Amino acid sequence: MHLYGYYRSSAAYRVRIALNLKRLHATQLFRHLQKGEQRSADYLPLNPQGLVPALVLADGTALTQSLAIIEYLDETHPEPPLLPASPVQRAKVRAFAQAIACEIHAVQNLKILNRLRALGHDNATVTAWAHDTIAEGLAACEVLVSAEPGPFCFGASPSLADLALVPQMFNARRFKVDLTAMPRLLAAEAACMAMPAFASAAPEQQPDAE
Amino acid sequence: MHLYGYYRSSAAYRVRIALNLKRLHATQLFRHLQKGEQRSADYLPLNPQGLVPALVLADGTALTQSLAIIEYLDETHPEPPLLPASPVQRAKVRAFAQAIACEIHAVQNLKILNRLRALGHDNATVTAWAHDTIAEGLAACEVLVSAEPGPFCFGASPSLADLALVPQMFNARRFKVDLTAMPRLLAAEAACMAMPAFASAAPEQQPDAE
Repeated sequence: MHLYGYYRSSAAYRVRIALNLKRLHATQLFRHLQKGEQRSADYLPLNPQGLVPALVLADGTALTQSLAIIEYLDETHPEPPLLPASPVQRAKVRAFAQAIACEIHAVQNLKILNRLRALGHDNATVTAWAHDTIAEGLAACEVLVSAEPGPFCFGASPSLADLALVPQMFNARRFKVDLTAMPRLLAAEAACMAMPAFASAAPEQQPDAE
Repeated sequence: MHLYGYYRSSAAYRVRIALNLKRLHATQLFRHLQKGEQRSADYLPLNPQGLVPALVLADGTALTQSLAIIEYLDETHPEPPLLPASPVQRAKVRAFAQAIACEIHAVQNLKILNRLRALGHDNATVTAWAHDTIAEGLAACEVLVSAEPGPFCFGASPSLADLALVPQMFNARRFKVDLTAMPRLLAAEAACMAMPAFASAAPEQQPDAE
């Protein structure tokens, strides 16, 4: 397998964690997002959205969208499971991950911030957009897990929810979001980062980190 | 079951289609998004994100995020299936749905457009933002299904991908996106709209339509 990614991409980071938890190897290939390499002619056939990640299987099939890739890995390599057994809990884990992927990350990623710059906004306004998106989004996520047992988002082992949370917490710090009112998320993140599968997937550990 | 929605919400529309396809009944309750009713004190406990939809089960459990709700319905009421059997095809269907939910809908929904207005942008700029997001996003979606058999997005029966597509095509027309270069998406939409489960879920058919 080949994983196309970028060290600071939240979506690629999620997939790196999943591969590590499943003890699967994928050769990493890099597309530098700030140089626009994710829109190059050789890459678009793999990911027509012009985004990372793309996971290319041994037969050449290219899979896109991090949460879909992770569910593929979970279905084809069930141990350790990244979704609970009960349909209600599975729905809650997926909803948490989607709350981050759709309403936080997709609204504050590099592409959107560049669109705001193209509309004439200065750095302060663009940074505030990202900050506010993350702060509001994570505040809702804190509520979503407040009644769930820890130490992870949904219980005693990491799930798809934690794979979405950890990269978003990295982004939260980049944009100086105050996380003190989110003790449950901080505890889940800490439980994750104590695991080598998460720690070694961190942006600063990647070969393309700058 | 109770479904909290809004007639023009793409996400609620997806869930209405799923309920219809599964022949499940949910009492509809409405939160008027332009009046901010999705952020009322009685609703936030059901959906801490302050978004529709929320599906409240008979035991009071509230599920959020449309794609997670639809997978819950698919897992608990497997017929007709909304995901294919093979892991690769499941990943492709999920990726298509997420491409719409995350990178199109989440970036052009009412909340984001209101944020742009709050930054001082006029109607033309805000409308162009929505138009361009949808046009670029659906162009990628057209490629994602170009090699798949029809008439639906992924084969002979509707899937999660079609449930995401149809509401987004409705939005595309609202923002006057030129769909002529997307014949595969138009064909899938037409196949869907010929089914009462889709047609009766349309915004203009809802009791809260204005």
